[in-house]
Amino acid sequence: MNKVSMRGQFIVCSLLLVLCSCATSAVEVSPPSWWQGMKDHHLQLMVRHPNISDYSIETDFYGVSIVDSASPGGDNYLMVDLELSEQMKPGEATFTLTGPEGDSLSFTYTFAQRAAGSAQRAGFDASDVIYLITPDRFANGDPKNDTVSGYKEQPNTAYKGGRHGGDIAGIMANLDYLSEMGFTQIWTMPLLENAMPQYSYHGYSTTDYFKIDPRFGSNEEYRLLSDKARDKGIGIIKDVVLNHIGSEHIWMKDRPSEDWVNHNFEFVPTSHRREALHDPHGVEADAKAHSEGWFVPTMPDLNQRNPYVAQYLIQHAIWWIEFANLSGLRVDTYSYADKQFLSQWTKRIMTEYPNLNIVGEEWSVNPMITAYWQKGSLRHDNYQTDLPSVMDFPLQVALVNSIKNPERWDVGLRQLYDILAADFVYGDPYDLVIFGDNHDMSRITTQLDDDYDKWNIAMTILLTTRGIPQIFYGTEIMMHHPGTDDHGFIRADFPGGFSDKTVNAFTGQGLTDKQKKAQARLKLLLNKRKASQAITNGRFIHYSPHEGTYVYFRHMAQSEPEVMVVVNKNTETTTLDLTRFTRHLFHAKSMVRWKDDAELPVGQSLTLPAMSATVYTLHSK
Amino acid sequence: MNKVSMRGQFIVCSLLLVLCSCATSAVEVSPPSWWQGMKDHHLQLMVRHPNISDYSIETDFYGVSIVDSASPGGDNYLMVDLELSEQMKPGEATFTLTGPEGDSLSFTYTFAQRAAGSAQRAGFDASDVIYLITPDRFANGDPKNDTVSGYKEQPNTAYKGGRHGGDIAGIMANLDYLSEMGFTQIWTMPLLENAMPQYSYHGYSTTDYFKIDPRFGSNEEYRLLSDKARDKGIGIIKDVVLNHIGSEHIWMKDRPSEDWVNHNFEFVPTSHRREALHDPHGVEADAKAHSEGWFVPTMPDLNQRNPYVAQYLIQHAIWWIEFANLSGLRVDTYSYADKQFLSQWTKRIMTEYPNLNIVGEEWSVNPMITAYWQKGSLRHDNYQTDLPSVMDFPLQVALVNSIKNPERWDVGLRQLYDILAADFVYGDPYDLVIFGDNHDMSRITTQLDDDYDKWNIAMTILLTTRGIPQIFYGTEIMMHHPGTDDHGFIRADFPGGFSDKTVNAFTGQGLTDKQKKAQARLKLLLNKRKASQAITNGRFIHYSPHEGTYVYFRHMAQSEPEVMVVVNKNTETTTLDLTRFTRHLFHAKSMVRWKDDAELPVGQSLTLPAMSATVYTLHSK
Repeated sequence: MNKVSMRGQFIVCSLLLVLCSCATSAVEVSPPSWWQGMKDHHLQLMVRHPNISDYSIETDFYGVSIVDSASPGGDNYLMVDLELSEQMKPGEATFTLTGPEGDSLSFTYTFAQRAAGSAQRAGFDASDVIYLITPDRFANGDPKNDTVSGYKEQPNTAYKGGRHGGDIAGIMANLDYLSEMGFTQIWTMPLLENAMPQYSYHGYSTTDYFKIDPRFGSNEEYRLLSDKARDKGIGIIKDVVLNHIGSEHIWMKDRPSEDWVNHNFEFVPTSHRREALHDPHGVEADAKAHSEGWFVPTMPDLNQRNPYVAQYLIQHAIWWIEFANLSGLRVDTYSYADKQFLSQWTKRIMTEYPNLNIVGEEWSVNPMITAYWQKGSLRHDNYQTDLPSVMDFPLQVALVNSIKNPERWDVGLRQLYDILAADFVYGDPYDLVIFGDNHDMSRITTQLDDDYDKWNIAMTILLTTRGIPQIFYGTEIMMHHPGTDDHGFIRADFPGGFSDKTVNAFTGQGLTDKQKKAQARLKLLLNKRKASQAITNGRFIHYSPHEGTYVYFRHMAQSEPEVMVVVNKNTETTTLDLTRFTRHLFHAKSMVRWKDDAELPVGQSLTLPAMSATVYTLHSK
Repeated sequence: MNKVSMRGQFIVCSLLLVLCSCATSAVEVSPPSWWQGMKDHHLQLMVRHPNISDYSIETDFYGVSIVDSASPGGDNYLMVDLELSEQMKPGEATFTLTGPEGDSLSFTYTFAQRAAGSAQRAGFDASDVIYLITPDRFANGDPKNDTVSGYKEQPNTAYKGGRHGGDIAGIMANLDYLSEMGFTQIWTMPLLENAMPQYSYHGYSTTDYFKIDPRFGSNEEYRLLSDKARDKGIGIIKDVVLNHIGSEHIWMKDRPSEDWVNHNFEFVPTSHRREALHDPHGVEADAKAHSEGWFVPTMPDLNQRNPYVAQYLIQHAIWWIEFANLSGLRVDTYSYADKQFLSQWTKRIMTEYPNLNIVGEEWSVNPMITAYWQKGSLRHDNYQTDLPSVMDFPLQVALVNSIKNPERWDVGLRQLYDILAADFVYGDPYDLVIFGDNHDMSRITTQLDDDYDKWNIAMTILLTTRGIPQIFYGTEIMMHHPGTDDHGFIRADFPGGFSDKTVNAFTGQGLTDKQKKAQARLKLLLNKRKASQAITNGRFIHYSPHEGTYVYFRHMAQSEPEVMVVVNKNTETTTLDLTRFTRHLFHAKSMVRWKDDAELPVGQSLTLPAMSATVYTLHSK
């Protein structure tokens, strides 16, 4: 079964059709369809077929002009630039390709009608909480797709680095659970095809930018997940990989050009020295060593300075937003892609979808470096970026340190306070994605010694401080991995999602008391948060930590504080003097504790349980 | 002996004279003199005398107008605003004060001629190396002033926190040593009067802003030191304390106003939370807790928001620059003073002396916070500052960590590289004062385990990287303090400077071989540095550390690299592949090693001794 006809299986449902005509093998076209009515009237098709590079191309579809067609370098590729007029109507265009010998080929290409309001869709924001899922490890909703013919890697649930069978159907089947817990966004690790011989479950080795891996489901299932999730108030965030492909991608066997992949298609490892990108004393070679090097030999590093590569990656992102009705993107290994390309990529997407959100992963604990990529940040050069959000790695480390370290002059809660006090570097600190852990590091429960009180402090802060919280699947039941930091164990099977249902986190069956307590606590925090405008849309104001306590408030602009959060790191019950906070408690007459809805008068002091984080809603009447 | 007549002892030599007339006690005037021809024509005199506040004041000195006179609040103070016209000539002005009962007082005030070129004087810069001296502990040049009558604290050489007798005469007597070593600037810890009952040797508890403590010498001796030092190519940097006074200052007994000192003259400790000054989420109370709190009960915190206090501190700085012909100022506890005052203070001084240098002490290891105070830095608000330099505390910590830590992914030389790569935050990284230690922390030798090789790496980097190096006295002989971090031991007596000359670092007598080696190495580095335009005035370019090595170059703009520095952290001899540096070694034909002037051809590789830092001058012919 050749590639195009495989794609045809799902393309038909997405209103597009790539037909083979008069030729021995099919024509491959990317992106596989497009839409009428996009802001950008330009579309660049990548056409692949043996020796297609010197073919001419024509169409008489109303409103479509062929502006240019050129080979990117490889004989089997033709890049076709189209101008789509405002007058173009949705429909199927036929393109005819004529070879130097007079032979001809054709394909049909669908221009679909955009969904109403597509351009103005709202992206995820601080009113949301994101649930991060490793699809292979969350729930196996369709055991039939565990093995798919034509794919080398077979399921192996016994192996930590193997495919365990989780899929889109599994997520779909448990939307009620996520909705009831209070999550409003799902970020899945990549679902695109990873036709790799081994270690493919993580999804970061793309072998087809337009095809969901059939072990996870299909394009249509992904769109269905998005529709069903949206019905429950949950948005879908796609994990996009701009930096690299999988070594089994067709581009490695049939090169579109000799500069399509950095370092002439040969493995040279990245230096991971992102600092060089900003270094006023640095050499260009060090900057390139970061962005042009490869992660691993199985992840060839794309050269986005090639304008065809850039355009391809821009269109692929827009295609998925439009096709699957996404609420946002998470961009993998952000700073490893070409800087100028990223500038262009963010601009093009944010121009099409001005209210979308995109969060870039820049794994640095230096806020000056993470902030560099966010729109509106303090920046030492004239770099342009339209990226709305970055992952707040500096806060992640500070959060863990602030909880784990003793309260001393130089460490403890002040580490959290200091990093938040440094928010002046960011264009918009409220739009940062904050987290205690993710799929690439030890789980927060493990980082916090599997201790419920520490876990509770972390969760309470994450769900009430500034930013857009992201929770890694399993955190709600304190999943942990004692004695190992292997990714395969970090990304363990979610109990209840697989055939062994002795322990089932969806139903509560078999959970320990501690797990049940954690799950209930997170559910309470998520749902109370959702109902609090002060947290989801309000200002954050904090006081310098004092004697092991840390206090902050949330409130809508111009209004009195509505939420007060009190963290107590002391290992004994502590009396907090409230007079220091008079300016923010002045109007408060009573305070309702989230935990039990107990209503307390606002007095001169407050008794804090040892190692606790308590949230109160303040009332002025 | 009253205060004014004591001051008279030195005032006569500085061309000013404060006379008592027709009154039972003398009139005190600050500043004690002024100059003709300053850019700013305004001068504010603080006149102190019993019940002077409602006196009127007059003068008929040509070119001097009394613009205003007013009480700052206290009965015994009168603030007199003068306008000095361009036509005013140097000379002695008589001012007459008339009381409400018709009684009168007068004083004579000197307007001196400025030294030629005073306004355009060059401040310290990257062509300099600063030697930091604790005056009480460097050399006792005049044992006669060890005990001065009227001062409570007696010398006590046996006590680590006592006065040991070092003085200005001791520095003056050893200028040849410092000059031969290769130092070109001396920063002394404060020399102003500290008439405190105990722990006064450090000098940070000012009791008279216009008087050198007689245990250190006199104003005239200080000026003589400056003259003699200048003759040897050495400038003098004064340590100024704007934040606080000593609790024995007259202002504590006779208050100029009730808001002269923060917190109504009562001790409230500072929070030391400088982060609050920049915190977008912070409360004003936390910012004030930093800047308005006191260090210790014996250091009352000045309220520079009072415009009289501000003007007093501005004029005192200008007075000393002009009087003692200074090459710059070091400002103690910079961010603890009022922000808006600092803006005004730096502007006023830099307007009078556009080429001066001033370095502020902001003890934060976060470059975003230190950079905030430097002119031209990336800044999140519209704060104005004319401060040319700040102390580079972030580099200090990074330097030590980079040498002490093993070479790993996250620590080692990369810590030094990372902090330099973050220089984009600074207005001018070349104008930062860099150091391995100072008087307030463990000596660099102790921080580096008393290990010569580590010490050598630190010194070599400090004297060849970007910035203005500062070396703490005694570093040249690896002074250290095992088993204690007590300031009294950190600031130990310099051997040879006191009566026991068994060990004498000035002559070399009694030094260990290691000490002699260190002293010779530092002397070599200092003198080679002095002769290298590439280092003192050139660009700095570095390469990302690699396998325990770190390489950087210095060169004049537009020219080929002239100096190469190679650091090797490996504990075995290492072969460095030079091909990575081809871009900077392209034109080099030979390299001359500083250590022994050995000339080597530039080949494909270089053999590096274990744990070493080697400097080469490159030659293209």
